[in-house]
Amino acid sequence: MLKAIVVGASGYTGAELAQFLTRHPNIELSGLYVSEGSLDKDKKISELYGNLRGCIDLPLQPLGVSGIKAACENIDIVILATAHEVSHDLAPLFLAEDTVVFDLSGAFRVQSTGFYEKYYGFTHQYPELLEKAVYGLAEWNAEQVKTTDLIAVPGCYTTASLTALKPLFEAGLIKQGIKPTINATSGVSGAGRKASVVSSFCEVSLQPYGVFTHRHKPEIDQHLGTNVVFTPHLGSFKRGILASINLVLNEGVTAEQVNQAYQDAYADKPIVRLMDGTLPALKNVVGTPFCDLGWAVDGEDLVVFSAIDNLLKGASSQAMQCINLRFGFDITTSIL
Amino acid sequence: MLKAIVVGASGYTGAELAQFLTRHPNIELSGLYVSEGSLDKDKKISELYGNLRGCIDLPLQPLGVSGIKAACENIDIVILATAHEVSHDLAPLFLAEDTVVFDLSGAFRVQSTGFYEKYYGFTHQYPELLEKAVYGLAEWNAEQVKTTDLIAVPGCYTTASLTALKPLFEAGLIKQGIKPTINATSGVSGAGRKASVVSSFCEVSLQPYGVFTHRHKPEIDQHLGTNVVFTPHLGSFKRGILASINLVLNEGVTAEQVNQAYQDAYADKPIVRLMDGTLPALKNVVGTPFCDLGWAVDGEDLVVFSAIDNLLKGASSQAMQCINLRFGFDITTSIL
Amino acid sequence: MLKAIVVGASGYTGAELAQFLTRHPNIELSGLYVSEGSLDKDKKISELYGNLRGCIDLPLQPLGVSGIKAACENIDIVILATAHEVSHDLAPLFLAEDTVVFDLSGAFRVQSTGFYEKYYGFTHQYPELLEKAVYGLAEWNAEQVKTTDLIAVPGCYTTASLTALKPLFEAGLIKQGIKPTINATSGVSGAGRKASVVSSFCEVSLQPYGVFTHRHKPEIDQHLGTNVVFTPHLGSFKRGILASINLVLNEGVTAEQVNQAYQDAYADKPIVRLMDGTLPALKNVVGTPFCDLGWAVDGEDLVVFSAIDNLLKGASSQAMQCINLRFGFDITTSIL
Amino acid sequence: MLKAIVVGASGYTGAELAQFLTRHPNIELSGLYVSEGSLDKDKKISELYGNLRGCIDLPLQPLGVSGIKAACENIDIVILATAHEVSHDLAPLFLAEDTVVFDLSGAFRVQSTGFYEKYYGFTHQYPELLEKAVYGLAEWNAEQVKTTDLIAVPGCYTTASLTALKPLFEAGLIKQGIKPTINATSGVSGAGRKASVVSSFCEVSLQPYGVFTHRHKPEIDQHLGTNVVFTPHLGSFKRGILASINLVLNEGVTAEQVNQAYQDAYADKPIVRLMDGTLPALKNVVGTPFCDLGWAVDGEDLVVFSAIDNLLKGASSQAMQCINLRFGFDITTSIL
Repeated sequence: MLKAIVVGASGYTGAELAQFLTRHPNIELSGLYVSEGSLDKDKKISELYGNLRGCIDLPLQPLGVSGIKAACENIDIVILATAHEVSHDLAPLFLAEDTVVFDLSGAFRVQSTGFYEKYYGFTHQYPELLEKAVYGLAEWNAEQVKTTDLIAVPGCYTTASLTALKPLFEAGLIKQGIKPTINATSGVSGAGRKASVVSSFCEVSLQPYGVFTHRHKPEIDQHLGTNVVFTPHLGSFKRGILASINLVLNEGVTAEQVNQAYQDAYADKPIVRLMDGTLPALKNVVGTPFCDLGWAVDGEDLVVFSAIDNLLKGASSQAMQCINLRFGFDITTSIL
Repeated sequence: MLKAIVVGASGYTGAELAQFLTRHPNIELSGLYVSEGSLDKDKKISELYGNLRGCIDLPLQPLGVSGIKAACENIDIVILATAHEVSHDLAPLFLAEDTVVFDLSGAFRVQSTGFYEKYYGFTHQYPELLEKAVYGLAEWNAEQVKTTDLIAVPGCYTTASLTALKPLFEAGLIKQGIKPTINATSGVSGAGRKASVVSSFCEVSLQPYGVFTHRHKPEIDQHLGTNVVFTPHLGSFKRGILASINLVLNEGVTAEQVNQAYQDAYADKPIVRLMDGTLPALKNVVGTPFCDLGWAVDGEDLVVFSAIDNLLKGASSQAMQCINLRFGFDITTSIL
Repeated sequence: MLKAIVVGASGYTGAELAQFLTRHPNIELSGLYVSEGSLDKDKKISELYGNLRGCIDLPLQPLGVSGIKAACENIDIVILATAHEVSHDLAPLFLAEDTVVFDLSGAFRVQSTGFYEKYYGFTHQYPELLEKAVYGLAEWNAEQVKTTDLIAVPGCYTTASLTALKPLFEAGLIKQGIKPTINATSGVSGAGRKASVVSSFCEVSLQPYGVFTHRHKPEIDQHLGTNVVFTPHLGSFKRGILASINLVLNEGVTAEQVNQAYQDAYADKPIVRLMDGTLPALKNVVGTPFCDLGWAVDGEDLVVFSAIDNLLKGASSQAMQCINLRFGFDITTSIL
Repeated sequence: MLKAIVVGASGYTGAELAQFLTRHPNIELSGLYVSEGSLDKDKKISELYGNLRGCIDLPLQPLGVSGIKAACENIDIVILATAHEVSHDLAPLFLAEDTVVFDLSGAFRVQSTGFYEKYYGFTHQYPELLEKAVYGLAEWNAEQVKTTDLIAVPGCYTTASLTALKPLFEAGLIKQGIKPTINATSGVSGAGRKASVVSSFCEVSLQPYGVFTHRHKPEIDQHLGTNVVFTPHLGSFKRGILASINLVLNEGVTAEQVNQAYQDAYADKPIVRLMDGTLPALKNVVGTPFCDLGWAVDGEDLVVFSAIDNLLKGASSQAMQCINLRFGFDITTSIL
């Protein structure tokens, strides 16, 4: 039985992870932690998430740097569901305790220190960890995930986008010189569990934000290997991301070739569901670990739709996929 | 042309009032004010409420005690859409400037200083104003409203409840000794425009709150003249209140007598709509100044339903009714 | 391994049952059926419920009376998620095939044939089955469920109401002569999966309906043993029921006695969660099999709140509780 | 005082028009009509739209071809809020009665009979009316609207898209050879007021539909004069459309030139609001007649956002703009 802890467990992704870990037949959830200054410290997680009452009633223990050594005793797996800067600071400390670290933040996703100065506003102190970190896009980097101790779990928009785009670029079907345009809409939970006028019930409505400035755009660029135009939107729903992607095919590329590219990439991947004759809808993926992909071709024009639950395939269930990969369990264990 | 200002104009009820006043043929909206410490000071109101852009672009001017005299120059009407304590402190100052004050807070609604200690946590300094203040339940206190300079506009739950209950008690139809029970559900805007985890989009769901402790319960008791059991709920919608009220009729009272009591009270009141053969629904009143009343009788059991827009009949449009009453305009001017 | 089929599997409760059965370690889901005239016949269930794609892709087979014998071959468990009249007609046929029948409709819930003429509009043909049928309120009738072959799973409003009320009446805490009043609000899924203007997205808003005429009122009366006033409401959300119940306590009854009554009834019942120091909220039960109970006392006045997922504890997970009871499995198997 | 009637008044756009006309100082709403077979015939419109109770209680009169002559007596304005085929058949009959016809359907929007066979499934019988009809995009075709008797009011997606795109193409800023891609999300009211599983409360979630096949795509193409890629989506909200449009600028075109193009087109147009330093959000336009436009430039990449209320600027308030234009009233009369 492996032992796991979740750091930053008071947030939405932390609560989801607590549930996946509790359900896992080979892993024991050994502790939930929040920062020492958290208003939620010493509460039970079920006080924050009433649905967990009677199911997971573990306390949210305060954890500072000095407590890390004790917290890691006999622990195999550390999941960081913490802010970017916090993950950046904590990951090396947990690695030093011989744990395998799965980080849900952006702190180790992009192998470029300049990127962190520009998009995250801090100077990355651990270029050697950036190099070592494996990007946990589970359907694409399974082999590398198996052999590292630091997994950077991808962002939610990025997962939706890359899962849709990579098969097409791998197969060389997309015309050079015209950027893919990604219009994606995320549920409000993407903003995290915090007080804010912007995410208050009466203020939310469909609207774009972060145009040309969102951090997931360069994350997509790097892991796709090409530049995209990315436009995020806030939607008036709690969970889920739908990405609608416009592309132009190389001359002569047929709908059959597009189909084949997706079949080649995902026919044996249980978490990616290829729609045939229908299109993704958010309701089909919310509360599930799936990524649903659908597409349509009209001459040279291709539109691809990718739907995920932003808190699951976009965060916590993908982390579980990575844990399963890393420790040799079936990739769907505890998430399906 | 009368001149009016709104103090506390950055909130939801302030924004509604700004619209009613702008639309009024006999009143000019002369200024919008917020507290000196407000983060919104010097913004245009249309920066907060994008729907007003191009319609009302007045600035939210900071106002402290020292600025009141200047702010009142040539002003006839002051509307306080401020917190209870703020209204308590400001109302006397505005009255001293010979304005007529319409207060949307609870500061002058209940003629009992003990009430304020118990339910509002402060000692009321102005018992003489409490006595002078008229409770602005527009369909019931029209005559008194016409002759005072301080109108305490009723709370939202209170308006929904009293409008439903007063005709029955006035007509003596209700059995003594069994309290009316009011179960009312309010939209999230009732909590005001502020950052809070409780009213964040992902956290809102139907739930009771403030059971046996809500301030509107003694407000109802006093203005009805009998004790009620009042249970407020938060609903997962933006605007509106539905109150469902259970009562027991005196022996022998018929459905016809109930109908007649409502006809007697409201047949000539345009803002209260009596349903016949149907029941109120929130969608019919949201965005309108109406109070919709419906009821059903089964033997001695009576159920009454009252639906209003909490920001309108429960606050801003009722304030406009009072302004119209006070200054001799038709009661529906600018709100219908 | 027991074998089960679901009849009427295209509806919301049928789809939930298909999931519980698929997950059950001791039961095999052997078939899903719809009526011969259904537009959904021969579709995969995952075509209707895209979330099930890749998880449950069984077809919805058409089933008429002539096919029942064949459909029951080697089958132990039949779940009827059918309309009241259909369950009424089919239950005897399935019982004749030596299956154990769990009926989610109202056809066998009330032991009074007059009740069916008045509230369901048909003459019940099987008074002997009405007598034999056990009302599957799982926390209260466990022993009887174990020994019958026809279980009438309670209605959703009824489950929420009775779970809240029975401990108080069993303990004799409630004053005679004043009816409990139940104000309950249900999500739109309670109306089933069908085209209707009333349940269309743009038409739904909080409103009462079926006042003094809803079928669940006499169902509550009979199984509680006293008359209630019951007022159902439609809420603008998909799933869940919150019942807010007003009661008057016998003279001298204390809050401690109320607490004790609930502890006595449910301390060892994992599916009923007693809130302490907090109140139920829909979000905590939606998607779970739990019934959350909270209450508050003020003098003689008692308010009790009961929250369930109408499709789960109000239908499908309660059916699973009954199946678990009937066949000797742990009561939470496959639902927690 | 001009006199107007609305045909097809039971639908969402009809109800909105009834309100605009009632409020108009120079027009009298003389009658509301539905088809002879309508289930709503002879009901008051306020029975369908409870919000109108006490404001507009006109009956929905049944109207067949034989009744048109009588219905047109003394009538100046006929608004067709009817299905495409019905408008196609009725418009000539109303024109023969010397009324000015404003048609909200697609029947006269595209000057190509082949278009109707392909996209609407019927053979257009009135090519001479197609030629005569003026496309009522109010900010662009004002002069032509003034001089015709048949105005084809644009579709909702089309209005949002063309209002955003026309200034850019008129100014010659957009690179040839790369199609604009429009991803637009509409509220559920766009599907009309009818019973349907697809638009039922429990079934709606964000999803694409009509990809490469929607009728508004060729409508956009024709009135823009260039081909677009258009992808409509259904959103989980009642009203509003947000269109997010990706474009590639000609080499060297600057953000200032884009700004200028919009200023040139709309600086004197009160219904189009140009955002500066912010982006459109649905909540700002829902319930208003405005089209809000915002945009951002990054090198050659341009993203434009256009937000409208689909029932207002996308239908009824644009019809009112056209009526105001046609009869010489201020363009905002009754809608602002």
